[in-house]
Amino acid sequence: MNQNSPETYQLDPAIAARVRFNDQGLVPAIAQAADTGEVLMLAWMDDHALAYTLATRRGTYYSRSRQEYWIKGATSGHTQQVESVSLDCDGDTVLLRVYQRGGACHTGDRTCFDADRLA
Amino acid sequence: MNQNSPETYQLDPAIAARVRFNDQGLVPAIAQAADTGEVLMLAWMDDHALAYTLATRRGTYYSRSRQEYWIKGATSGHTQQVESVSLDCDGDTVLLRVYQRGGACHTGDRTCFDADRLA
Repeated sequence: MNQNSPETYQLDPAIAARVRFNDQGLVPAIAQAADTGEVLMLAWMDDHALAYTLATRRGTYYSRSRQEYWIKGATSGHTQQVESVSLDCDGDTVLLRVYQRGGACHTGDRTCFDADRLA
Repeated sequence: MNQNSPETYQLDPAIAARVRFNDQGLVPAIAQAADTGEVLMLAWMDDHALAYTLATRRGTYYSRSRQEYWIKGATSGHTQQVESVSLDCDGDTVLLRVYQRGGACHTGDRTCFDADRLA
């Protein structure tokens, strides 16, 4: 375990008490562009990913498919500089306002919601 | 079961094939204000709630706590007129752009993310 990896970061107990993680220990996090207002993506955070995001201001998630932490842009360069982090009224969703470098989507698109409009 | 209730609506098979509902048959749906860009709320949809939303253009969800359909505004009057519905790149999140009447949040706030800023 790397000394600087997200799992070494502990969430402030005052915050941990307010977040309702699901039975897998995860909470959905919406990333919204701070400049344009676009909804960029939804990903998941555990307590360490949220703690790391709050401490470093780098958008950081937990990949359910890869079962590992995912510091957005660490490999692609498409980083998210976090402007603000808000919790919703019942504590089970996080909203990040971010400055997104490059495309937020792994396809290269600006947002993950660009490609498939249902209606 | 009411004839006009969401559970009577069937999702287009071409759409159903693209949406990845979770093991509880649900997908998270983000509602964003079409006019201001504000992220208003996150709730959950099953296939019938999504079908109903697409057919009627009324934002409709499945309440996990109450285990029932929830046509937004049916009791409060705070309806959501749906402008567009998009699916994300991996098919497991829905984004609605809506015209929100009144507050989106059950607390009366404009959005569910108004009250608790973590950073």
